[in-house]
Amino acid sequence: MTNKTKAYAAAGVDVDLGNRVKAALPALLRSTHTRGVTSLPGGFGGLFSARFAGVSDPVLVASMDGVGTKLKLAFATGAHASVAADLVYHCVNDILTLGARPLFFLDYMACAKLEPPVFRQVISGLARACRATGCALIGGETAQMSDMYRPCEYDLAGTIVGVVARKEILTGTAIRKGDALIGVPSTGLHTNGYTLARKILLEQEKFSLSDRLPGAKNLTIGVALLRPHRCYLREYGLLKKSRIAIRGMAHITGGGLPDNLPRVLPAHLDARIDTARWPVPPLMRLLVERGRLEREEAYQTFNMGIGYVFIVPQEQAHSAARLVRGRVIGEVVAGSKTVRLE
Amino acid sequence: MTNKTKAYAAAGVDVDLGNRVKAALPALLRSTHTRGVTSLPGGFGGLFSARFAGVSDPVLVASMDGVGTKLKLAFATGAHASVAADLVYHCVNDILTLGARPLFFLDYMACAKLEPPVFRQVISGLARACRATGCALIGGETAQMSDMYRPCEYDLAGTIVGVVARKEILTGTAIRKGDALIGVPSTGLHTNGYTLARKILLEQEKFSLSDRLPGAKNLTIGVALLRPHRCYLREYGLLKKSRIAIRGMAHITGGGLPDNLPRVLPAHLDARIDTARWPVPPLMRLLVERGRLEREEAYQTFNMGIGYVFIVPQEQAHSAARLVRGRVIGEVVAGSKTVRLE
Repeated sequence: MTNKTKAYAAAGVDVDLGNRVKAALPALLRSTHTRGVTSLPGGFGGLFSARFAGVSDPVLVASMDGVGTKLKLAFATGAHASVAADLVYHCVNDILTLGARPLFFLDYMACAKLEPPVFRQVISGLARACRATGCALIGGETAQMSDMYRPCEYDLAGTIVGVVARKEILTGTAIRKGDALIGVPSTGLHTNGYTLARKILLEQEKFSLSDRLPGAKNLTIGVALLRPHRCYLREYGLLKKSRIAIRGMAHITGGGLPDNLPRVLPAHLDARIDTARWPVPPLMRLLVERGRLEREEAYQTFNMGIGYVFIVPQEQAHSAARLVRGRVIGEVVAGSKTVRLE
Repeated sequence: MTNKTKAYAAAGVDVDLGNRVKAALPALLRSTHTRGVTSLPGGFGGLFSARFAGVSDPVLVASMDGVGTKLKLAFATGAHASVAADLVYHCVNDILTLGARPLFFLDYMACAKLEPPVFRQVISGLARACRATGCALIGGETAQMSDMYRPCEYDLAGTIVGVVARKEILTGTAIRKGDALIGVPSTGLHTNGYTLARKILLEQEKFSLSDRLPGAKNLTIGVALLRPHRCYLREYGLLKKSRIAIRGMAHITGGGLPDNLPRVLPAHLDARIDTARWPVPPLMRLLVERGRLEREEAYQTFNMGIGYVFIVPQEQAHSAARLVRGRVIGEVVAGSKTVRLE
């Protein structure tokens, strides 16, 4: 085969380009490989051992997610590796709420035409975040669809698979009235609310990404918006090591505190949150002010400064908060699986 | 929370719509659930037991894929369920080449604004194909990105995870000189080559989807192009049951026979294919003719009528071909991991 798909290239799909770009992949993927990975070059799938030493009755936990329109900021600034890492951290946090540790990750990147430097940055970002979380990057798909995506844009999604011992799955049934909610700070918007944030700041208020963020020192709007999605795997490890009884966890993603805490609450309990307990970060304050957002709206669109919540027994609240450098932001009360913002 | 994200809706993300649409999901997902699924409503991930009875030293096999621009035909015709099923079958075939049976699937659907009927059709298509292949649909992500996708368009990708006993993984090392290649017919283009096919037929030759396909009886261009991606799980089962020694398998996807067979060939062997052994379907004939495609180009872009290849010992070739209603299309010869089209 010497004469490769000329007509296909003319139709907008550059197969050779795809193959050349992918040649750089194996080394990057290998850098993420953990003990469970079985390498099989050229195969049609990524392989991972399902023997989990020390995990009795193992259960796989899988989750799929995208980056959302935070991508638009990567297109504007070139922060491709950063948003790619965000995706991994987001997925790691999601399955962590069930008590699962990450095993492996696969990504989907779709664009009009592969741009090798962008592709490499995306894969390096994924690989870096995978290495940081002990998660093996074992596969993925790159699609060139010239008549669906705009030039220089792409979509990015990923699937994570982790494992947890069945008896350690956090189903929320361990949560008791009086338990404390430990909020751990977010680093920014993480990966949620970007469509609205961009609309308020960039379209309506005409800020440019290089403008200084009001209320913050030495921080531009662009840097604040692109802040990486924080991963809470380390904080979980610290609490486990110190024998804090984690009774529930919530990753504060789309829907904010009001929509994400109920996902782990039993039917007869509410979460009462005292919003005065932590400072709302300058970026969220600016969004609320300039977007004239009502409080409910703001808390349901943005994380408002809390990226992850651990639910622990009241008597362990302060040691837990200290360990994770978080704050007691509220408590579990009788109710009906809702969140009360006070 | 009564006042839901009005500003977010104005920015183009309808959270309420998303939630309403998703309310129909649980029943559809449940219809696909197999024994391994652990249900945990509201959780941040899909759960699946990692105890695989009868599979010694189990290895997980994961693959991610998209539908590609076959989606454009679904946008034009409303065949959303059909292309969604295609995605599942494609993924099932991919991991089948390693000997893995499907366990579970997750999907990613991204669009400008969720259209409930389209979303329901996509999920029903996924669910139908998952039921047909014994694969549980345990999760997914729906993203509304108003400024990335065109109205009435969406992208669709999915991840499959399957399992195989380590000693049964088909690595290609069992393939011997003289082995027979059994080609099993495709039903159409499956999910590859659509950018070129659409360019040749719809743009250049100005065919409409309702035009009769030249060389075929009672078949329109549209129906031929949208033919479902065939799944070869059943054929694999038939061969196993009849104790045919399957030494290798290839799913003929992007890159066609020339690029996909080498993925399973050992370094010192070639696949010699006699292209006169099977009839090229009318749709591919039309594409070659009107696109003025050279033979190499055609075989590397389209499956040319062969969707899946089983590599079996020569002495079992004819029984194998009969069992799967396929044809002996060639044999394994000494060489260097390439495909010779003769």
